[in-house]
Amino acid sequence: MELRLDEIVARFGGEIVGAGDTAIARIGTLENAGPGDLAFLANPKYRPQLKTTRAAAVIMAPPAVDGPAAAILTPQPYLYYARVAQWLNPLPDPEPGIHPTAVIEGEVAATASIGSNVWLGPGAKIGERVVVAANCSIGAGVEIGADSRLAANVAIYAGCLVGARCLIHSAAVIGSDGFGFAREADGAWVKIPQVGRVLIGDDVEIGAGTTIDRGALGDTVIGDGVKLDNQIQVGHNVRIGAHTAMAGCVGIAGSAVVGARCTVGGGTVILGHLQIADDVDLAAGTLVTKSIPNAGSYSGAIPFLEHGDWLRNFSRLRHLDAMADKIRALEQRLAALEKKS
Amino acid sequence: MELRLDEIVARFGGEIVGAGDTAIARIGTLENAGPGDLAFLANPKYRPQLKTTRAAAVIMAPPAVDGPAAAILTPQPYLYYARVAQWLNPLPDPEPGIHPTAVIEGEVAATASIGSNVWLGPGAKIGERVVVAANCSIGAGVEIGADSRLAANVAIYAGCLVGARCLIHSAAVIGSDGFGFAREADGAWVKIPQVGRVLIGDDVEIGAGTTIDRGALGDTVIGDGVKLDNQIQVGHNVRIGAHTAMAGCVGIAGSAVVGARCTVGGGTVILGHLQIADDVDLAAGTLVTKSIPNAGSYSGAIPFLEHGDWLRNFSRLRHLDAMADKIRALEQRLAALEKKS
Amino acid sequence: MELRLDEIVARFGGEIVGAGDTAIARIGTLENAGPGDLAFLANPKYRPQLKTTRAAAVIMAPPAVDGPAAAILTPQPYLYYARVAQWLNPLPDPEPGIHPTAVIEGEVAATASIGSNVWLGPGAKIGERVVVAANCSIGAGVEIGADSRLAANVAIYAGCLVGARCLIHSAAVIGSDGFGFAREADGAWVKIPQVGRVLIGDDVEIGAGTTIDRGALGDTVIGDGVKLDNQIQVGHNVRIGAHTAMAGCVGIAGSAVVGARCTVGGGTVILGHLQIADDVDLAAGTLVTKSIPNAGSYSGAIPFLEHGDWLRNFSRLRHLDAMADKIRALEQRLAALEKKS
Repeated sequence: MELRLDEIVARFGGEIVGAGDTAIARIGTLENAGPGDLAFLANPKYRPQLKTTRAAAVIMAPPAVDGPAAAILTPQPYLYYARVAQWLNPLPDPEPGIHPTAVIEGEVAATASIGSNVWLGPGAKIGERVVVAANCSIGAGVEIGADSRLAANVAIYAGCLVGARCLIHSAAVIGSDGFGFAREADGAWVKIPQVGRVLIGDDVEIGAGTTIDRGALGDTVIGDGVKLDNQIQVGHNVRIGAHTAMAGCVGIAGSAVVGARCTVGGGTVILGHLQIADDVDLAAGTLVTKSIPNAGSYSGAIPFLEHGDWLRNFSRLRHLDAMADKIRALEQRLAALEKKS
Repeated sequence: MELRLDEIVARFGGEIVGAGDTAIARIGTLENAGPGDLAFLANPKYRPQLKTTRAAAVIMAPPAVDGPAAAILTPQPYLYYARVAQWLNPLPDPEPGIHPTAVIEGEVAATASIGSNVWLGPGAKIGERVVVAANCSIGAGVEIGADSRLAANVAIYAGCLVGARCLIHSAAVIGSDGFGFAREADGAWVKIPQVGRVLIGDDVEIGAGTTIDRGALGDTVIGDGVKLDNQIQVGHNVRIGAHTAMAGCVGIAGSAVVGARCTVGGGTVILGHLQIADDVDLAAGTLVTKSIPNAGSYSGAIPFLEHGDWLRNFSRLRHLDAMADKIRALEQRLAALEKKS
Repeated sequence: MELRLDEIVARFGGEIVGAGDTAIARIGTLENAGPGDLAFLANPKYRPQLKTTRAAAVIMAPPAVDGPAAAILTPQPYLYYARVAQWLNPLPDPEPGIHPTAVIEGEVAATASIGSNVWLGPGAKIGERVVVAANCSIGAGVEIGADSRLAANVAIYAGCLVGARCLIHSAAVIGSDGFGFAREADGAWVKIPQVGRVLIGDDVEIGAGTTIDRGALGDTVIGDGVKLDNQIQVGHNVRIGAHTAMAGCVGIAGSAVVGARCTVGGGTVILGHLQIADDVDLAAGTLVTKSIPNAGSYSGAIPFLEHGDWLRNFSRLRHLDAMADKIRALEQRLAALEKKS
């Protein structure tokens, strides 16, 4: 596929600087782009590379600068890049049909593509143009909306619903039992049947190895447009609002409610039964131990240090209370002295 | 399935308040229950919902209160709820037999159910009424005890033993190599063959995406009744005592020994070669860096803050040692002044 | 397989103490070894066990001590043990051939072994003596170098390259999409196509459930001899230098560059776009928030405490800034008093 700058601008807007008939075959980084590559400047840190880039053209915010052979000026170069990249890299059309080794006990739309050794349980429904890659296991009664794609080796338990245009990566698990047990007097655990479902909206992306438990009573709900990176754990009855995005290795305990348009940094843990408001940004590595009723940015991770400095400083953590006591004692003794003098 | 309150009490004990012939079809939450639903009050925070619930009856601790149409009084309502829920939601009986696409090189009990495209290695033994769902891979010599269930896409390596009545969720891995290497002078690593096994007791639940490494020499041992949530990593030669429960995303490094009846919060990491006593409770997000010889509750996670507060406070962590020095200097100067005055 | 001490020393060096014709059948621990077992002393903590071990011989650093029936003296007993253990536990030779249930659209070397229900996409190439266990899914154009082994249920996306002598454990995912989205004004996310690959060098081990995303533009690169434990998340365009080893549950965000011969403790998180020098050791549970230009040891995790102590001390963290202010005020008041007196 090859595009001209003026074709791109006709579709996505922006202003061309230089030759409108510049041919574009690929997207590249400022540093590594060559002829035929369209690069972009989104992070000011890379601005010096404008002088040396060999890209055919650069997507950037105005004003135009010397350097690139040509440019598209737009107020949001990263978003513009995303759109052009999608146009240049269209998803391959699924090859409709069911591989002869797949075991199909449910219904598959005629335009869907089912890979080898897939299992589809009774009553399950696969929508139009859905792609299910090899070795996926899809339980009874699961429904998958039009144009969704499952990479290889995904497991979806019985009864879960997946919306349209979703993308689910390998080794993801949807609908496993939540972690619910009552304790007997001797410490043994009695399992609480997990009879809810997982409901996944439209345009959701779920990363490799991410696990989403079904509800205990009621459902676990992932809103439209939610983006979950790899190895995220979502407990039973969690609700995640629309367009919230979470980086890798996040854990969300049962019944937590996360609002819409939140961003959650990698490795953050949200404890159970908490409520997080809309538009909350959580820094990486934060342990969220109470509800957050207001939008804003929150952090909880601690700085790392060279090991010797760490030993000196962090060992003090065990004595913070004693330090506070000493300060209070000093204040009292000093006040007494001040009175005297 | 429909039950009457008096049938439930005849089986599990407790005292009925209201009509014993109240019909129960399902379990529900106080908030969402409707006619035919049995709700429960386990967390005092939800007590106000007793006034408004539409549940047919409520399981709760005595004394009886006005509000619910009927009630079962019991000192342990959560445990009682678990038992009734199990009765109302019995596990489906496995359909005995081996799917024709399964590749069976081992032995399968006549009452077991083996799903499509399962691989069972030579010498492996599958017990009575075991269910193995689609696309599981079970290595040579593995033994799985009666009534255990494997969800789809589980992998068990050669030689591991799984007890009776276990439940293993999708994408779990049992028996992968432990992380054992010796280092050469130039920094390269020499692999240490991992020749032990994983031994899993009875009544163990293993969450989706949880990984348990085989022993290097000797075995990794998971005790009876242990409950592991999703995405837990268990290193080689770890031993976990009976009825210990761990929430999601916990990591346990090699050769750590965790006692019986412990509870471990989500995201906690236990370093290698440590000994944790019986009946230890570890809060979420704790890094356990030394052995814990005594039962009790231990914590190590830090509070999160609004980002500005965090910047102000946590940057001080790098200077705790200096703060301690300043306090000591103040104490000396003050003592000198006090002597003088 | 049985070896004599003098055969071992002929191959690996070291000095025999005792009878050179001592027969060795297995490796064992000092504590559990019996007749025919070769034990080793690598950790001084276990030195007292030399008195009581029933091992046929012990690998240890000089000087010889009384106790063991025989010994091999070597300056690096752990490395020596690794080599002997490899000799005693050779990898089983793959049984060449393709299981009839495998779906092969690519090329497989005649000496390779492909398990049941494997899917191999068009254009993929499997090298000599490679073992691919059951239910693996290997995308179009993937190449796997000679003598590499994939455990069951591994997924490799299209276009990724794996070197020679690699070992990839179950539920690992190679080549899933990186987490790249641009944000629209209303908070919705526009996916950035992830068109790079994952390039894995020779002699790499990848743990169970570990996920490695493909590059967005350009590739994600794992150097020769890298060892990744279980449940590690590697973001798009990350580069990891040769012989770096990472323990379980580590997360590395996109475009981070980790040097050669680093060691990374369990649960550590490295943020995106950072540069970590060669020969850096990161302690378990560290959040790396800025680049580390120099070799050395770095830490960031905090000590855990008995819960009551933790409450007393860690609540102070929220008031560190106020404590620093109080110390400064005390210093000023004291200076004023000192001037007066």
